[in-house]
Amino acid sequence: MTFAPPRALRPNDAVAVVAPSGPFDRPSFEKGLALLATRYRPIFTERIFATHRYLAGRDEDRARELQEVLDNDAVCAIFMARGGYGSMRLLPAVRLGGSRALVGFSDTTALHLATQARGWRSLHAPVLTQLGKQRPDVVTRLFNLLEGRSVAPLAGTRTVVPGVAEGPLLGGNLSVLTRLLGTPYLPSLRGCVLLVEDVGERPYRLDRMWTHLELAGALEGVAGVVFGELTGCEEKDATYTPDEVLDECAQRLGVPCAAGFPIGHGDVNFPVPLGARVCLDADRQALTLLEGLVT
Amino acid sequence: MTFAPPRALRPNDAVAVVAPSGPFDRPSFEKGLALLATRYRPIFTERIFATHRYLAGRDEDRARELQEVLDNDAVCAIFMARGGYGSMRLLPAVRLGGSRALVGFSDTTALHLATQARGWRSLHAPVLTQLGKQRPDVVTRLFNLLEGRSVAPLAGTRTVVPGVAEGPLLGGNLSVLTRLLGTPYLPSLRGCVLLVEDVGERPYRLDRMWTHLELAGALEGVAGVVFGELTGCEEKDATYTPDEVLDECAQRLGVPCAAGFPIGHGDVNFPVPLGARVCLDADRQALTLLEGLVT
Repeated sequence: MTFAPPRALRPNDAVAVVAPSGPFDRPSFEKGLALLATRYRPIFTERIFATHRYLAGRDEDRARELQEVLDNDAVCAIFMARGGYGSMRLLPAVRLGGSRALVGFSDTTALHLATQARGWRSLHAPVLTQLGKQRPDVVTRLFNLLEGRSVAPLAGTRTVVPGVAEGPLLGGNLSVLTRLLGTPYLPSLRGCVLLVEDVGERPYRLDRMWTHLELAGALEGVAGVVFGELTGCEEKDATYTPDEVLDECAQRLGVPCAAGFPIGHGDVNFPVPLGARVCLDADRQALTLLEGLVT
Repeated sequence: MTFAPPRALRPNDAVAVVAPSGPFDRPSFEKGLALLATRYRPIFTERIFATHRYLAGRDEDRARELQEVLDNDAVCAIFMARGGYGSMRLLPAVRLGGSRALVGFSDTTALHLATQARGWRSLHAPVLTQLGKQRPDVVTRLFNLLEGRSVAPLAGTRTVVPGVAEGPLLGGNLSVLTRLLGTPYLPSLRGCVLLVEDVGERPYRLDRMWTHLELAGALEGVAGVVFGELTGCEEKDATYTPDEVLDECAQRLGVPCAAGFPIGHGDVNFPVPLGARVCLDADRQALTLLEGLVT
């Protein structure tokens, strides 16, 4: 399976900011927006500030907003304001995939996977409310990937299953990924290097999600596994850790796996292109891009 | 779709107690066991008291225990010690279905659904650690259902979508049910009256689970929906309730639905046979059994 690259950005290109998921804190958003505006021309409407329960407005409004920027040739990339929850609700209503890079993570995983299911690459990277808290090298890497420059390999901290694997990088947030099992929005994971990160999920829930992947047969043929951050997943007063629970899952699968990559809900969320071919060297705990994000 | 009834119990029959899910508190277990022993002869081994992280022992041991009682003709019904998490991990290793009634709820939903996927009825009822805290009429209803006597309709508290629906009752815990989407262990829900209860799931998570059912097409042809208890699902400081979130989901589906049935993690968890035909009168908020549990 190969995934088509979206087009490269150039400085000062118009980029859209949308809010298909949860409502957000304005100051964090403004901080990320200011960073984005140092390089591109962000455009958005007041709609993104709407709130409906745990959603950034009603489904029909969030879906229309997203479809409009997907259809707008003047938009060169699409940035998510925030994650949270809600993008999977829009999947039947929007037509994803195409030459504009989609940028986000966490709840955006639903949009990423649906984009890959339609054959396109996209960018796992901070949402705007997270971007302002990131280190400068994260922001530089984001711009480099969007503009087609090569980036350094990422380093993990732990070998879980030794070996080397190559394949397109797919995945992201484990909770969101597994909520697409049995739906038309999850691409086949056969041959891929599977990226997994999560936040605020107790160890038994991580176990349950991985078990779901297993029972659904979704892990058949997966070439390798990359564990990013498991932020706030510790069980209070437990003698076991989230790491040990997921390590055991990966060992059961038995393909090369390394953990501790700086990808996810931590202070450092390095961008990685989804659908692009990568090489995971689990022995050396290194994730190297064999393809970029863009043409 | 019809589901075969297990055989009826008689007083003093031998019944097995197993622990395919999480470890448990001994005093609660003993209290439930004592109630069970007022009517039947419970048999179990010391194995059920094992603990491995959040599981009542290792998978191979829990699976062997369950398979042994499923294969044991001297056992007339199988009671779960507790829910929690872990039974779905055993699904590939055990052969469910057969003439012995399986009794439990919550995490047991995985075993129930796999039992229905193989064409058999089973009993949604308190696990032993919950049984000792239940009202006497709950225990009487449990014995009546297991012994083939008729039981009273259950009353809900709220009409969500008016109308009347008939079909086999399927479902149980929403978290566990949705963790079988895309696996071979979930029976078709077409034509069924869907039972849903849950505990400790924030409203956006309830939404996410229901949305998963929708995106997977699993709700197509569902005849009616019965909401049991949503215990501890309230979001702190929120202006919205779990009820209103799930009500909206059911309204989107548009089939007869009533809520507030005393089934689930509350103080009153009335037993209902899964796979048996029921009539849901959503206008009158009444759930009537058209078939019993047993032959």
